Amino acid sequence: MASGSKTLEELFAVIESRKNADPAVSYTAKLIRDGRLKIAKKVGEEGVEAALAGLKGERSEIVGESADLLYHLLVLWADAGITPSEVMAELEQRKGVSGYAHKAKRD
Amino acid sequence: MASGSKTLEELFAVIESRKNADPAVSYTAKLIRDGRLKIAKKVGEEGVEAALAGLKGERSEIVGESADLLYHLLVLWADAGITPSEVMAELEQRKGVSGYAHKAKRD
Amino acid sequence: MASGSKTLEELFAVIESRKNADPAVSYTAKLIRDGRLKIAKKVGEEGVEAALAGLKGERSEIVGESADLLYHLLVLWADAGITPSEVMAELEQRKGVSGYAHKAKRD
Amino acid sequence: MASGSKTLEELFAVIESRKNADPAVSYTAKLIRDGRLKIAKKVGEEGVEAALAGLKGERSEIVGESADLLYHLLVLWADAGITPSEVMAELEQRKGVSGYAHKAKRD
Repeated sequence: MASGSKTLEELFAVIESRKNADPAVSYTAKLIRDGRLKIAKKVGEEGVEAALAGLKGERSEIVGESADLLYHLLVLWADAGITPSEVMAELEQRKGVSGYAHKAKRD
Repeated sequence: MASGSKTLEELFAVIESRKNADPAVSYTAKLIRDGRLKIAKKVGEEGVEAALAGLKGERSEIVGESADLLYHLLVLWADAGITPSEVMAELEQRKGVSGYAHKAKRD
Repeated sequence: MASGSKTLEELFAVIESRKNADPAVSYTAKLIRDGRLKIAKKVGEEGVEAALAGLKGERSEIVGESADLLYHLLVLWADAGITPSEVMAELEQRKGVSGYAHKAKRD
Repeated sequence: MASGSKTLEELFAVIESRKNADPAVSYTAKLIRDGRLKIAKKVGEEGVEAALAGLKGERSEIVGESADLLYHLLVLWADAGITPSEVMAELEQRKGVSGYAHKAKRD
């Protein structure tokens, strides 16, 4: 990891700390107040934008849209009481990441 | 972070290490070989599923769909030569995470 | 309308007629039996694929993905007891279609 | 079809007629000028919103989001030089609509 950039856990902690802030001041607090449907919309819409940036292929746009998508995904976790480590533990079992290639035929 | 679970960077390193594996054995290698359009589709589709899981509200489904979405996003980064730290640095500047609330009116 | 092709209403009537067919024989009946979450997933996922085809720009793929998207949207209407004419009446009021440009500043 | 509501072809003709209008006055003209990426984003994002409305299950929201999605899909067709009858002809061949169940195992 490049020195200087925060980890996913550190960024999640910032989001967590904003949950109960004033919605007039904090975008995170506003999303949480607007409710789960609003957060879900943003996750789905940013997924579309990340997909389109991926196909278009401009590196800086992929980075920007990925950050937008991840931010809203972290807000969803914060709203649902889910921690990054839970998702990482789950991700570790996905095909493509798991080392147990024999289990799923594909790793 | 819960002891035992890997960091995003460690999981990304696993994905990176699979890029040139045999597509018949590695799902990651197969996605990379299928090309950017296929990877983009998966990112967009998993975004939809994460959004629907978020609205439905079952915790374990949100964790599972988030892991699927993140996995395919990491494959997009690997395919585009993007590192997690670049995205984390960008995420840090998003409203909702940045401390500079005065800049964007909302933090 | 080109002679030979059916109208949206005629295609909707076909889908309606399949709702109670045997799910082992009819894909429409299978979707309806699988339930609203499955239908919603398909609508969202086909929306992603239509978007990507639109950006990629190959005419035949846009036609194909549009057909897939419309089909699943019609299944959603059938499942929710909505008719095409209701949606057409609503569409007529959208900016971009309504003639009342002065109302919304944009038509 | 309920008397009074326009057909898809009639609504498409309205959109077609706006393509070259002043983007300051016509939302359709503005979308066309903004370009294919913008239109594709709207199709994907409205697909997400239709999916979420479908899962949420409020009838009027499904109608409204379906109209939004269809409108942007029609703009994509207008931009790509595709007619509704082409898409209807293609839709007719989809499983779930085609009568030739024996061909695809599922109709």
